Amino acid sequence: MTYYIDQLEPGMSASTAKTITDADLVLFAAVSTDVNPAHLDEEYGKSTPFGGRIAHGMLSAGFISAVLANQLPGPGTIYLSQTLRFKAPVRPGDTVKATVTVKEVIAAKNRVALDTVCTVGDTVVIEGECLMMPPKRPAA
Amino acid sequence: MTYYIDQLEPGMSASTAKTITDADLVLFAAVSTDVNPAHLDEEYGKSTPFGGRIAHGMLSAGFISAVLANQLPGPGTIYLSQTLRFKAPVRPGDTVKATVTVKEVIAAKNRVALDTVCTVGDTVVIEGECLMMPPKRPAA
Amino acid sequence: MTYYIDQLEPGMSASTAKTITDADLVLFAAVSTDVNPAHLDEEYGKSTPFGGRIAHGMLSAGFISAVLANQLPGPGTIYLSQTLRFKAPVRPGDTVKATVTVKEVIAAKNRVALDTVCTVGDTVVIEGECLMMPPKRPAA
Amino acid sequence: MTYYIDQLEPGMSASTAKTITDADLVLFAAVSTDVNPAHLDEEYGKSTPFGGRIAHGMLSAGFISAVLANQLPGPGTIYLSQTLRFKAPVRPGDTVKATVTVKEVIAAKNRVALDTVCTVGDTVVIEGECLMMPPKRPAA
Repeated sequence: MTYYIDQLEPGMSASTAKTITDADLVLFAAVSTDVNPAHLDEEYGKSTPFGGRIAHGMLSAGFISAVLANQLPGPGTIYLSQTLRFKAPVRPGDTVKATVTVKEVIAAKNRVALDTVCTVGDTVVIEGECLMMPPKRPAA
Repeated sequence: MTYYIDQLEPGMSASTAKTITDADLVLFAAVSTDVNPAHLDEEYGKSTPFGGRIAHGMLSAGFISAVLANQLPGPGTIYLSQTLRFKAPVRPGDTVKATVTVKEVIAAKNRVALDTVCTVGDTVVIEGECLMMPPKRPAA
Repeated sequence: MTYYIDQLEPGMSASTAKTITDADLVLFAAVSTDVNPAHLDEEYGKSTPFGGRIAHGMLSAGFISAVLANQLPGPGTIYLSQTLRFKAPVRPGDTVKATVTVKEVIAAKNRVALDTVCTVGDTVVIEGECLMMPPKRPAA
Repeated sequence: MTYYIDQLEPGMSASTAKTITDADLVLFAAVSTDVNPAHLDEEYGKSTPFGGRIAHGMLSAGFISAVLANQLPGPGTIYLSQTLRFKAPVRPGDTVKATVTVKEVIAAKNRVALDTVCTVGDTVVIEGECLMMPPKRPAA
């Protein structure tokens, strides 16, 4: 399912979505060691401008990584860089949709630039760009 | 333990470290849905330039989030943006150290820019920058 | 962030809090093998005096361990002993706050005794005491 | 499988055992928020007297809770108190055996005192005592 550099062109897009559960917050805290009370303590969350617990930003960023790795360009792709601008909070129960769209294909360097965005309903929660190196087409 | 904007100055630094285990790869795949065989399939990994499974880049990025959230600026901080340049692979068994260093304090806007780096031994695996908004000092 | 024995004095206190989710009950059951239906079976729970599932006592006790390890005395501390008196049940959705307070500093033996309490709102759910050995101050 | 107070007598014993994996350390960190590097950072562990990562003490204590809840006195038992003396470290890969032995039956108050011990091979890692309230025998 992987796209090689000559199969990629601007405007190609793919997306994935996942509902954020309490389990995701607990497990992301585990793997990241980010035990910020903003993510784990509902009473603390109520004292913040967000009014409750919010998800780790990097958890939503992981969905961008997922759609890049699983779909476009797909397995074997090497991740070169990513920018992330956190625009709005994600709360337990929200469904985050990550969409990646090819912006530029740099065939000579075997690199592709994509726009990456995460949304909850109509709200953009993360926006940014990434640079990927698709796998080389096996020699014939 | 949180630093307010007037307590931050360029050069302040904090770090955290974690050893990447198989459990981290499985759990990060679970929460992110990034089930790329590069992370989960040792035989596939052996067929790649990396010669084995590698960790998700966003897993290491999560340690940057952890040190920002847990230590500097600390709990209550709002994450505005992050850039990530993936420089080298991280493998199961590696210990990743995430270090953040205050680069610029923009007191008028209550924002702080930090350099963020992840290393394995002497090798830089991720480098980038972030922009954070520390919590406001409670009114006296 | 660790406190050495000469930096500790009676009355110093630290706390942490976490909301107990279903994920916590499942994961604590997984790691502990404590699969008591009191924690996992809502219908069984309804048949008990508690009227529903309750959290594992040792899960709340783990928050005491967390605040000792993360904050006071902090990383590197060796846990010598802990007493736990379970006073009231903790239910999914409750936010448990663990507070530790230095009671006695035994500098000659590099030991510190702390009072340890877990509360849900105004209700004490666990009370007890612990004895810790802070890390030795590195030689100059 | 639950023992009522009139079925318990001094010397009755039960045990359970579990091998500590990396996954247990990561998941216990998740549920407890105890992200002490002693448990998660192998390089830090090498710098300590233990020479590597060690398991959370409360993880092993959880096995005591498990054998009490699952076997003796068994499901429905209410946990009143527990003392824990941590005698030796537990490392990833160790198999911890938790054994509980009835010490005293206080029938008039429907309470039973048990000795509780965790061992790794021949080494005692935790010792202590607990007080339990078995469920009441249903009326005939």
